[in-house]
Amino acid sequence: MGYVRSPYKEKQDAPQQGRMSDTVSEIVIDEHYLPGLEDVETRSHLIVLSWFDRADRTLLRATPPHRKIEHGVFATRSPDRPNPVALSVVDLLGRDGNMLRVRGLDALDGTPIVDIKPYSPDIDCVP
Amino acid sequence: MGYVRSPYKEKQDAPQQGRMSDTVSEIVIDEHYLPGLEDVETRSHLIVLSWFDRADRTLLRATPPHRKIEHGVFATRSPDRPNPVALSVVDLLGRDGNMLRVRGLDALDGTPIVDIKPYSPDIDCVP
Repeated sequence: MGYVRSPYKEKQDAPQQGRMSDTVSEIVIDEHYLPGLEDVETRSHLIVLSWFDRADRTLLRATPPHRKIEHGVFATRSPDRPNPVALSVVDLLGRDGNMLRVRGLDALDGTPIVDIKPYSPDIDCVP
Repeated sequence: MGYVRSPYKEKQDAPQQGRMSDTVSEIVIDEHYLPGLEDVETRSHLIVLSWFDRADRTLLRATPPHRKIEHGVFATRSPDRPNPVALSVVDLLGRDGNMLRVRGLDALDGTPIVDIKPYSPDIDCVP
């Protein structure tokens, strides 16, 4: 339903987790889905689900960055995983028609967008 | 890669958002992915991505519960949406082989599991 326009062109460009970065990217949504974006601009933060199409889907174990111990992949946030749906909480900087400008997205340029949801601390966070 | 075993059999049984419910469900992971679960039990909370296979994928506008105004679907958490990947933060109560017992999941019985990630407030929450 859309894709990412990002300064991150290659895997080595992207940060470990986007939430800690200041990089601004764009999400371009297919015209068909434009009615779905109405009022998104009233939200300060969004949850972006993207499909990491360059991921290794055979990985079942991974070592988190700065760690030494390997874990099952579902105990990590490894971008390489069986179903590489990446989850990012982003700051919504603005909307221009079918384009959303966001900060804190670690997806590579061209990454397909799966879904966009409004971030809600009541639902998405544990107090 | 797995599915949900839940007391919620029909759409009308399920709560609006699982985070606010106490219901215990099970996630059954296909044997092939069992190595991926190693150490998941050390986490207190998980993010579960499931595929709401009974959703209406044509919906582009929705009215949130207890509200009167319709918004674009991407400005809501409607389970009916173009790509119905549901996102739930759950309490992990325990693991028994390829079965995870969780609380706070609003998925219907039989819902396919897309991915499991460890919940991390640094990544998943805005301070």
